[in-house]
Amino acid sequence: MLHPKSIAIIGASPDANKLNGRPFHFLRRDGYTGTLYPVNPKYADIDGVTCYPDVASLPETPDLAIVAVSQKLATAAIDALGEKGTPVAIIFSSGYSETGAEGAQYELELLQTAQKHGMRICGPNNLGLINAFENITATFSQYADKTPIPGPVAFASQSGAFGTGISALARSRGIGLGYFINTGNQADITLVDALMEIADDPRISVLSAYIEGIRDGTELIRLAHKAMEVKKPLIITKVGRKAAGAKAAASHTGSLAGEDNVFDGVLSQHGGIRARNEEHMLDLVSAFTCCPIPEGNGIALITQSGGAGVLMADRAEELGLEVAVPTSETRKKLEAVIPSFGSTSNPIDVTGQFLAEPKILTDSITIALEDSGIHSCIVWLQLMHGHVDLLVDIFKNVKTTVEKPFVVCWLDAPESALQQLRAAGIYVIGATERAVDVIAGLVQYGQACARHDGQAPLLASSKIHSEYTPPVAAPSMYAATLLREAGISLAPAEVANDPRQASEIAGRLGYPVAVKIESPDILHKTEAGGVRLGLVDDNDVAEAAADILASAHSHAPDACIEGILVQKMKKPATELVLGVRRDPAFGPVVMVGLGGIFIETLEDVSFAAVPINPAQAALMLDGLQGRAVLDGARGKAPVNRSVLIQMICNLSEFAAAHPEVVELDLNPVFADGDDIVAVDWLMMVDQN
Amino acid sequence: MLHPKSIAIIGASPDANKLNGRPFHFLRRDGYTGTLYPVNPKYADIDGVTCYPDVASLPETPDLAIVAVSQKLATAAIDALGEKGTPVAIIFSSGYSETGAEGAQYELELLQTAQKHGMRICGPNNLGLINAFENITATFSQYADKTPIPGPVAFASQSGAFGTGISALARSRGIGLGYFINTGNQADITLVDALMEIADDPRISVLSAYIEGIRDGTELIRLAHKAMEVKKPLIITKVGRKAAGAKAAASHTGSLAGEDNVFDGVLSQHGGIRARNEEHMLDLVSAFTCCPIPEGNGIALITQSGGAGVLMADRAEELGLEVAVPTSETRKKLEAVIPSFGSTSNPIDVTGQFLAEPKILTDSITIALEDSGIHSCIVWLQLMHGHVDLLVDIFKNVKTTVEKPFVVCWLDAPESALQQLRAAGIYVIGATERAVDVIAGLVQYGQACARHDGQAPLLASSKIHSEYTPPVAAPSMYAATLLREAGISLAPAEVANDPRQASEIAGRLGYPVAVKIESPDILHKTEAGGVRLGLVDDNDVAEAAADILASAHSHAPDACIEGILVQKMKKPATELVLGVRRDPAFGPVVMVGLGGIFIETLEDVSFAAVPINPAQAALMLDGLQGRAVLDGARGKAPVNRSVLIQMICNLSEFAAAHPEVVELDLNPVFADGDDIVAVDWLMMVDQN
Repeated sequence: MLHPKSIAIIGASPDANKLNGRPFHFLRRDGYTGTLYPVNPKYADIDGVTCYPDVASLPETPDLAIVAVSQKLATAAIDALGEKGTPVAIIFSSGYSETGAEGAQYELELLQTAQKHGMRICGPNNLGLINAFENITATFSQYADKTPIPGPVAFASQSGAFGTGISALARSRGIGLGYFINTGNQADITLVDALMEIADDPRISVLSAYIEGIRDGTELIRLAHKAMEVKKPLIITKVGRKAAGAKAAASHTGSLAGEDNVFDGVLSQHGGIRARNEEHMLDLVSAFTCCPIPEGNGIALITQSGGAGVLMADRAEELGLEVAVPTSETRKKLEAVIPSFGSTSNPIDVTGQFLAEPKILTDSITIALEDSGIHSCIVWLQLMHGHVDLLVDIFKNVKTTVEKPFVVCWLDAPESALQQLRAAGIYVIGATERAVDVIAGLVQYGQACARHDGQAPLLASSKIHSEYTPPVAAPSMYAATLLREAGISLAPAEVANDPRQASEIAGRLGYPVAVKIESPDILHKTEAGGVRLGLVDDNDVAEAAADILASAHSHAPDACIEGILVQKMKKPATELVLGVRRDPAFGPVVMVGLGGIFIETLEDVSFAAVPINPAQAALMLDGLQGRAVLDGARGKAPVNRSVLIQMICNLSEFAAAHPEVVELDLNPVFADGDDIVAVDWLMMVDQN
Repeated sequence: MLHPKSIAIIGASPDANKLNGRPFHFLRRDGYTGTLYPVNPKYADIDGVTCYPDVASLPETPDLAIVAVSQKLATAAIDALGEKGTPVAIIFSSGYSETGAEGAQYELELLQTAQKHGMRICGPNNLGLINAFENITATFSQYADKTPIPGPVAFASQSGAFGTGISALARSRGIGLGYFINTGNQADITLVDALMEIADDPRISVLSAYIEGIRDGTELIRLAHKAMEVKKPLIITKVGRKAAGAKAAASHTGSLAGEDNVFDGVLSQHGGIRARNEEHMLDLVSAFTCCPIPEGNGIALITQSGGAGVLMADRAEELGLEVAVPTSETRKKLEAVIPSFGSTSNPIDVTGQFLAEPKILTDSITIALEDSGIHSCIVWLQLMHGHVDLLVDIFKNVKTTVEKPFVVCWLDAPESALQQLRAAGIYVIGATERAVDVIAGLVQYGQACARHDGQAPLLASSKIHSEYTPPVAAPSMYAATLLREAGISLAPAEVANDPRQASEIAGRLGYPVAVKIESPDILHKTEAGGVRLGLVDDNDVAEAAADILASAHSHAPDACIEGILVQKMKKPATELVLGVRRDPAFGPVVMVGLGGIFIETLEDVSFAAVPINPAQAALMLDGLQGRAVLDGARGKAPVNRSVLIQMICNLSEFAAAHPEVVELDLNPVFADGDDIVAVDWLMMVDQN
């Protein structure tokens, strides 16, 4: 599909303004060197190229077919192409799953027809692809109204219109897209498939994508892993962050959007970078084509405006970058070059004097980047229309001598400066905060590379049961046994058959205890009067046990009562929540969050897909908004991060080993220093 | 200063590339119609205009002087100008407070020299001003390298370099700046003074500012109030959001940056709008010059890309906008015009068909904006290079028929489209999320206008004691009396002289009680062993009272012990924190936050300056990140907002009436439905 030596265009038209005329026109215009086979019974030739009445008449099997006929004719076209042995077709036709259930049925027929012949399809309802290296402009996208300029960036989009807009913006910024592909309804070939293939192309150094939903999350993980292996950053804008957006996404694509923060967690777990929007994505993409990867989060801000320095410092702190204090040696060197009315602390103010003495700026950048605590740098400028050549020379010179990344933030830069800097592979951006955002993206990627251990993830199955049966609660002690075997600490507990035995158990466990009704039919025990806490002696326990049995009976007369859970109470500590879910896209995922208000009000949780290694578990903790709580808020002992990380990894292994566990909640988990213990657990298992 | 009929330029040079030559050059180039008096003993004339050897020789008193001499000569120049009766001077000279203590001394001399003559000064260390309406280009800013284009926006900047960059960006976007002013060190005339004056100019409809710090917050409040009165939005970018940034700001300007979230709270309290950065500021400024103010937060998103619709919906939800569900009537009307493969829910997908039938787009926008739940609209497009005239006509047409605001978000728009739309007063922006940010700004301003009651704020004094004496803790019962008189509910408490009396009081108040050591010398009572909680009978109380007396004595043998505070304990409820501070810039401010983890870990608090009305108090609550907690998290009763709002207003009145109270902490406050009671309070008062 990406490198066809011949292309058949089914339904080709001589009208370059029409959807079915545009690919032929573009391919000819751009000098495609393979063979073109327009197919349309209406024409004997198109623009001098022989046009064939039908697929069967083609003199050879095309490497690729573009199907540009109406939905009614598309299945027959695919069948004919399959008969001819065509390996792959791009299907522009629309009227499929994007329109509802009936369309989805047509789409299935289309797919089955292709599969019958062992043929792959891309689409339907897409607008094609461009391989700009080989002049393959196999699209009707408006982006191709001008000849695509090849470059080191691959961009794949699930959306045609937005993808076109993003590609055009990329061109306006001088970003060369080596590949552009729109995958439409993804009946067969997905955006991930395409990028997996493209990732191996040595002409490509950055992978980027716009997505609305992922059906098979393990494929995305494979792609992220591959991107890490080939050392090409993977930058993704995904919409559907919020309920309103996700609702709109569902109505638009028919994809399962999944829980957005599962996506978010899994992407960063595997080293992908999420961009907030098209602008952020292109900022990052462009920077990755120019800049080496910083080895740490220390940043120098070099300005001739104190104000801009402050704005960048604000943003750097928000993004976890460190506006590093220069060493005294660095400051001494800077003092030797910067005028006394400037500033050698960071932000570094070189003053306007460098226009008279360019060495001030050149040396300041070089000296700052020699500091071991500084890993990247932003040089901030504005206007300077009279000094373009001087400045371009300075930056070109610096580029040849420094190895660490620097970014030029130039407000209202002259167009000629932009062009010269871009041509020299120097990243330049015209907005102050966005310059910092870009460095943060580079740093994030560097950290992901450092975390990457080269191990391919052992992907757990993400199959969703086609015949869904509601899961049931596992008995508490059964669950406890499994969890303890997996290395998860739980508060000591046993199940009693009657109140007298409950007292005995309590005496053995030690007071205070809690008693809870044990029944697979009563999930909400508190509401059923089935929980009593803080019991301090055997009378208390016996009485409470009798009470909860009575309450449970009156609340749910038909419930199967398996006994009374007696549990030793833990001293309240930092509250956490851990859990396992089966995500429709990513399969088993582990969740960690801070308990209480954090999870209920702020929904402050991190997800990662199973399997999870310790570095990834640490990343989950760093992703929590309220992570400072782990350091010991309100006089509590700091939570031992290693113990917590081990617990997350144990849960990951548990989830992989127990596919029958559909859902697991450890809530709350009390963390007191090294002592991290689940005091309540609920395990839901598949009935089968 | 803003409308001079004559301008003297002290130190004028014929070299248009020099700081001291540029204003003369610019004023002549731009056709300034007043009289120019260059002053420099070196020249007989400059470019044919008589040049005077000194100020004394001038044939008349100039309305304005520009002082473009070195710091050494500036004071003498000011003295001479004062002698001549000059009312105001702009001082370009640098080497003053921006360089340290010695410079600050020079600045004071400069100011005192001016004041001796009753003369006002703007600067020093600034780059002047532009009144583009009257061709007054009295600056050496690079922005004036091209003739300034007048327009309805006033922009004032404390930073010269950043201000220049922002102005240049404004020009590139087609935003006309009627006024540009840089106020430099603000020895006398401040940015706020300038905008106060400019606010009355009928040619100006939007006020904007870049600031690094505010010394006199009440002036800012006056400006915000004035902006509300004259119905001109006030949009401010302030740097120093974060510790790193604020540190940089302090080293740069010498301004007291104050606590950034105090600034943030006070600005929104008085209807100002804070922009995150220069890009956001210009987005907003430009939109305010084009768009009417929406009457609510319902937004319609009209696209021909589902993906862009989702991205905008995500962002809208994040910003508190409502992607309103159209009424069934609206949907019926939309169905009549939009092709069946489009979407009439919101986001509304008009499909590409509107290029063939423009009425589809025109009607869709009109119909959406007729819906009573929809108050504004974004129309999203990309490229369309072949359809510029058609689209411009559609938007111009819509602009004449609808009264609600709409914004065009056009990715990679052709330059001619941008120009035509801007000329027609239609707001157009090229980035998807930023389009939503702009609507959110318009909505925020509309809400501020609705809250504005026309009452000028009775500004409390913000004077900081020049002779600072450390404040002392007021006795608890004294504080309690004052607070109760002010209508603040406190937990019942009395002070006992000895353990026996403590038991008596406890019996009267009812159990359980807490006892706390009462001493002005022990602020951290818990650390001194001076607190015992949860006492349930008279023996308990007597014993605990004796214990804490002994502990306090051994902890602080010299402390003056005034007794034992016995306090009835409240049932734990939703925890809040309220307080009063004296802000260096804004004077008395009231703080509200959620207790516990929210204040300790997330620093989630809102500030407003005294006096605070109920609508402003409500805004404070809406500004809390964890505000959902007030609706009753974890099974707790929702907090009665009216009672809490009244408590904030009472605290505001209390702070105004008691200037001796330097600091007040109510922490925690327990809120249980209507019952909102401070269970601990600490009042620090001025020793004098």
